[in-house]
Amino acid sequence: MALIVQKYGGTSVGDVDRIKNVARRCIEAQKAGHDVVVVVSAMSGETNRLLKLVSQVTERPNEREQDVVVATGEQVSIGLVALAIQSMRAKATSFLGHQVRILTDSTFSKARIRSIDAERIHQALSKKHIAVIAGFQGVDEDGNVTTLGRGGSDTTAVAVAAALKADACEIYTDVDGVYTCDPNVVPVARKLDKISYEEMLELASLGAKVLQIRSVEFAMKYKVPLWVKSSFSDDAGTLVCEEDRSMEEVVVSGIAYDKNEAKIAIRGVPDIPGVAAKIFGALDQKSIVVDLIVQNVSLNGKTDLTFTVGKADFVKARDAVKKLVKQIKAEGFDFDDQIAKISIVGVGMRNHSGVAAKMFQVLSKERINIQMISTSEIKVSCVIHANYTELAVRALHTAFGLDRKVDVAAAG
Amino acid sequence: MALIVQKYGGTSVGDVDRIKNVARRCIEAQKAGHDVVVVVSAMSGETNRLLKLVSQVTERPNEREQDVVVATGEQVSIGLVALAIQSMRAKATSFLGHQVRILTDSTFSKARIRSIDAERIHQALSKKHIAVIAGFQGVDEDGNVTTLGRGGSDTTAVAVAAALKADACEIYTDVDGVYTCDPNVVPVARKLDKISYEEMLELASLGAKVLQIRSVEFAMKYKVPLWVKSSFSDDAGTLVCEEDRSMEEVVVSGIAYDKNEAKIAIRGVPDIPGVAAKIFGALDQKSIVVDLIVQNVSLNGKTDLTFTVGKADFVKARDAVKKLVKQIKAEGFDFDDQIAKISIVGVGMRNHSGVAAKMFQVLSKERINIQMISTSEIKVSCVIHANYTELAVRALHTAFGLDRKVDVAAAG
Repeated sequence: MALIVQKYGGTSVGDVDRIKNVARRCIEAQKAGHDVVVVVSAMSGETNRLLKLVSQVTERPNEREQDVVVATGEQVSIGLVALAIQSMRAKATSFLGHQVRILTDSTFSKARIRSIDAERIHQALSKKHIAVIAGFQGVDEDGNVTTLGRGGSDTTAVAVAAALKADACEIYTDVDGVYTCDPNVVPVARKLDKISYEEMLELASLGAKVLQIRSVEFAMKYKVPLWVKSSFSDDAGTLVCEEDRSMEEVVVSGIAYDKNEAKIAIRGVPDIPGVAAKIFGALDQKSIVVDLIVQNVSLNGKTDLTFTVGKADFVKARDAVKKLVKQIKAEGFDFDDQIAKISIVGVGMRNHSGVAAKMFQVLSKERINIQMISTSEIKVSCVIHANYTELAVRALHTAFGLDRKVDVAAAG
Repeated sequence: MALIVQKYGGTSVGDVDRIKNVARRCIEAQKAGHDVVVVVSAMSGETNRLLKLVSQVTERPNEREQDVVVATGEQVSIGLVALAIQSMRAKATSFLGHQVRILTDSTFSKARIRSIDAERIHQALSKKHIAVIAGFQGVDEDGNVTTLGRGGSDTTAVAVAAALKADACEIYTDVDGVYTCDPNVVPVARKLDKISYEEMLELASLGAKVLQIRSVEFAMKYKVPLWVKSSFSDDAGTLVCEEDRSMEEVVVSGIAYDKNEAKIAIRGVPDIPGVAAKIFGALDQKSIVVDLIVQNVSLNGKTDLTFTVGKADFVKARDAVKKLVKQIKAEGFDFDDQIAKISIVGVGMRNHSGVAAKMFQVLSKERINIQMISTSEIKVSCVIHANYTELAVRALHTAFGLDRKVDVAAAG
């Protein structure tokens, strides 16, 4: 017998039939002999409906009150899921953030979980109830309702699993696992049976949208085995877990791309101490998150400094840089929002040399110009022109041996 | 400076514009120098939408889980009202049942309020915030979400007013006060400036739908001055308060009618001890609420026993009586669901004789047959055929001097 936490996203509880499907799956797991906790999101479309109501009332909503409104989405879901389970003659109890004290800080709309009171959940489980917990929300020390930000239900599920010392946390979604690359771009992308937390973190932060980054961090920190599965099939899915020897044999596990950044280059920056601090301090003050930073070798006491920001911050960042150029006496600046960041990820890179070199060769062979390069222990990222995204991703996917073997007869 | 609790119903917060209107009214009261607490219902239609979702999932919902779903309606309203107030540059904080600990018993879907923690509301008021409180809901001792049943927001408002020792509780609705009779039936019905708790209770329980009965009981118990006002006008409304000398001068304050009952008469009931207990005990066991009961004088050791029940319980009651007639050896039974109960109410009746007699005369003059009569200290009810409802009500309204003086020129 195991303790399993299952999490179902908005599309999995999108209508009454799907809610019944979720109830059936929970009951199946219980009948298989497990203690079952289920974390659910708002019905798809509901969070947007509530945010629209808020925006009709005011353009600049207070985040405490917005959270009060938005948190109702998950509340409706847990009630309906518990009712669906009960209608199938199993036992269920729903729990809100304040009822199992999912304690968070007070950063409304993007709060972080501090602790969860496992006691009340254990009580329900001991009476053979399926515990149905509202994702995405908690309460702060003063009992105010908080929400965790988009995708927060994944984090709730992992945090609940950690607090309960669950044997597994299963994230049900509309895809059946983690792929070597986005199957929409690379039709021969392969589903992974297993991937390490570190790799999943890199892939998640590099633009693969299967799991919310914070939930992976949480799972890694508390060593929660995390499954990504489909709500609509019985496929085994992908296990996100601690790195093991077999993983190291694979050099590249996955390829990610991100077209949602823009590049700004400052030319002729005086190469003296404190200049970089000045530039990035100014951007930070405007809450602009900088991703890649590359600084070229200094020539004649001058250097070029290039960085990327999210497209949403691009205009704000460009205006800030315009002012900075004068202040720091740089020669000028360029910008480009038609870029893509292509990344290869794999824990095996640590023990294999020449991975970056091979990536550059593949891109060069396709005549794709590399504008920026950034590496970490288990990934290599290149910024290229956005037009070449698909070409680059497919070429790398093949070159690093990730393509699924296609049945020639079927493909032909 | 006074402390005022305002309550806005579903139609008053039915859309974003109306929510803004509520915000404006709260701010006006604050600007007039008052501490303002506002209790709101779910947006009109929302509770029904949520109940429909529940009924799509299961026909026999567990009431704890149904309450979890339904309570979200008010939660959305308080967030939006607080945001609307803030968008007009006043300060506001919303509070849910668990945040101001509106403690109820655990009778899900029709819980009763036990206590309210006034502390947190006072804190908000002391910082010049308008406190926006979710109506209709509370939590039980274990922190489960409970709801108070239809119209429960009125009760929340009065209970909050009692807990805060507020100077007034203002119930905003789509009518501008309490009328001597339903203006749809009696066009010359007059708005009352003042009415006693007792009279309001009788009127509410006799079918006038302005206020929820329990809220009036609560107001009477804690002596909370209760105003019924319109959300859409600046009329003074009606004050429901303790009886005073001026009220006693008025014999009849209002007339109510109720077409929602049915009558069952058991003929030839053996007039021996314990028979009535047997009959009404059996009905009670089936949760049938009996309203009027009339027993005629005994003839030859046999008596007739007539009672009324709500139309919703009629079939259930009829079937039960069918069995009972054999058990108690009665002669037979009749039933009629085409009846109306007409009631005249007034604290002045206590000091005026002949009020009932006058009522019977008026009905007789209109050739309306009286089927049942029931009286209390401050009311007289007659059951008549439903077809004569409007005729009876109008004749009584005129006879007891309740008609508004109509401008002849305007009326002509």
